[in-house]
Amino acid sequence: MTAIPKGFLFAAHNAGLRYKDRNDVALLVSETEATAAAVFTTNKFQAAPVLVGQDVLAARRTARAVLINAGQANACTGSQGLADCRESVRLVAEAVGVPAGAVLPGSTGVIGARMAMDKWPAGAQGLAAALGTSSHEDFARAIMTTDAFPKIASERVKTLSGEFSVLGMAKGAGMICPNMATLLVVVLTDAAVDADTWQDILNHAVAGSFNAATVDGDTSTNDTVYALANGASGVGATPGDTLPYVDELGFAVDKVCQELAYMLVADGEGATKVARIVVTGARDNAQAETVARTVGHSQLVKTALYGKDANWGRIVAAVGRSGADFDAQAVVVQMGGVTLFENGMPAPGDLDALLAPHLERQEVRIDISLGSGQGAYTLLASDLTHDYVSVNADYRS
Amino acid sequence: MTAIPKGFLFAAHNAGLRYKDRNDVALLVSETEATAAAVFTTNKFQAAPVLVGQDVLAARRTARAVLINAGQANACTGSQGLADCRESVRLVAEAVGVPAGAVLPGSTGVIGARMAMDKWPAGAQGLAAALGTSSHEDFARAIMTTDAFPKIASERVKTLSGEFSVLGMAKGAGMICPNMATLLVVVLTDAAVDADTWQDILNHAVAGSFNAATVDGDTSTNDTVYALANGASGVGATPGDTLPYVDELGFAVDKVCQELAYMLVADGEGATKVARIVVTGARDNAQAETVARTVGHSQLVKTALYGKDANWGRIVAAVGRSGADFDAQAVVVQMGGVTLFENGMPAPGDLDALLAPHLERQEVRIDISLGSGQGAYTLLASDLTHDYVSVNADYRS
Repeated sequence: MTAIPKGFLFAAHNAGLRYKDRNDVALLVSETEATAAAVFTTNKFQAAPVLVGQDVLAARRTARAVLINAGQANACTGSQGLADCRESVRLVAEAVGVPAGAVLPGSTGVIGARMAMDKWPAGAQGLAAALGTSSHEDFARAIMTTDAFPKIASERVKTLSGEFSVLGMAKGAGMICPNMATLLVVVLTDAAVDADTWQDILNHAVAGSFNAATVDGDTSTNDTVYALANGASGVGATPGDTLPYVDELGFAVDKVCQELAYMLVADGEGATKVARIVVTGARDNAQAETVARTVGHSQLVKTALYGKDANWGRIVAAVGRSGADFDAQAVVVQMGGVTLFENGMPAPGDLDALLAPHLERQEVRIDISLGSGQGAYTLLASDLTHDYVSVNADYRS
Repeated sequence: MTAIPKGFLFAAHNAGLRYKDRNDVALLVSETEATAAAVFTTNKFQAAPVLVGQDVLAARRTARAVLINAGQANACTGSQGLADCRESVRLVAEAVGVPAGAVLPGSTGVIGARMAMDKWPAGAQGLAAALGTSSHEDFARAIMTTDAFPKIASERVKTLSGEFSVLGMAKGAGMICPNMATLLVVVLTDAAVDADTWQDILNHAVAGSFNAATVDGDTSTNDTVYALANGASGVGATPGDTLPYVDELGFAVDKVCQELAYMLVADGEGATKVARIVVTGARDNAQAETVARTVGHSQLVKTALYGKDANWGRIVAAVGRSGADFDAQAVVVQMGGVTLFENGMPAPGDLDALLAPHLERQEVRIDISLGSGQGAYTLLASDLTHDYVSVNADYRS
């Protein structure tokens, strides 16, 4: 049962921006000003909605609405793209009666394509008409591009002062490493929290979830995570309050983001597997991350996972070329708890037979111990499949 | 017409190490001691033949023979693998009458698998019997694993002192970035050259060819380039000689290695295209290389090439996430000479129509000007196809 935070209204509508037979614009409105936080792409080419969203949050740390369109990323579109984004925001804000400066925009789709601006006036009216009649699931479906399913996760938190909820909705796959144009995530809560704490909570959650998940290593121009906290539950999580629930809120946001990240990798374009790559014993956490990402991005490892092939040599080769510093003789590699490589040699036994049952599973666990320190990192990665190639060779056509 | 350096004998034989119906061991012998140079993988896990080859060249800078087997990489096999490698070298050296310490070994195939040592005594006799009756093409075919065709390139150089030749043979794809287990290359010349100059020439050629080519970004435990110069032509290229042909020799080796690198990318597993990615205007050459590699390794760019999709937004997004420092407004991206992106915006015109003819070609040219300095780098990259996934999901089975 999805836990829906109080005080948020949803709208989804088919504006015909790109798709003919499904909703392609989505809006959510908080009934009151909500504390706002965000994490944006690190790509040097930031899409127009990213620039506008940053402007909103530079001027104020609250927001009333999030507006997302699917189909055109409005990235690499120059000053025209910025004007288009602002006009779409203005039209929708006017239609639903919130200040344009309180609307956080997001776009996903083909880079370089302008939004179909002639569709926005009617689209804004359609969103206003749908507001409050659409569900959060309608919202989550309207922001999809190549996603196979909508991604929704939630947590209900019970405290001595009452209950609050955290709801997350996402599209795409991977933050550092999204597949299509873009990861977009919205996290909502009806807890009350101050802006600094909310941003800290979001940063922590993103680092341990979307930034630790990869499909293909590509980072979009549009990646955005927006988080709104409207306090409608009446439960305050602000430090200094009589009953501070900062930890409870943080845990709930972490959990929601981790569930969404798992779904994103599982729905990585064409993916059939989720690899959980756990690196330990590195000189430091950064080196552990380097090793995890080299293994998780290796096309040879990813195709072997798809082929259910216990080809641990490709894992060892990826560890060896990662650039991390370690004692090669101290490295131990396991899959599904079975030791495959130790002391610079294959472990004894019929490894193919031992591993076969584990490789049939949807989640495959790879443990890499470098034996050279205390650094650790865990990464979720998808496999590389025929369908990935099909989806991405043909996306625009 | 392939130019064959004088004074080298070739042998290819089916020892049954892995393959039943084709040759899987290959040997070449120089009739006299040849000046030897080599470049080895930078992977932390170096295969047994890499370690043995390094030992040979640490003890002497000459060699008489190169011995290669296909099927088992003899990597990650510990002290047993080292002993196996030395035993195979000993058997073959004895059979053909050269010192075991003058034989440079190479292996390619599945990591972690031991060589089938019971096959080597007969295999060594078979190689000895074939020596001088096999051609260089037999050699090039015997070292193949998933290669679709043998890679052979040569140059004949005419000087006032006579002619010499450079012959190169390769398997695999990419030096920093080989596809299967391994890039193996042998470069032979009958010019005379001292060991330091020969190593310098090889280093230069490798940097501009195999290290500037990528299929999937994976670096093998076994990558090796061996180069032998036996002087059998009677033409000396040593500096200080009366007639120094160092430049001519260097140009010929550069050209042979560049031709081989192109073939390696064109034969990248399942590849249908070769992308020539030319980055200019970076702050320095290293930043240009970073941008070229980020674009050349992007799964989204590689699948778009396969799909003949003028999806330049994926190129721009890869440039933006490369980590290189540049002025985003100054970036210009072209494909096939057609400007696609400039001043932060798409170029005007029907880019799909303009690009369609170029995207039908086997070689696709991508120019990226960062407008921020004098740094430049050129990378050859393959596309990512259904066949790549098929080959690598099923290799061992």
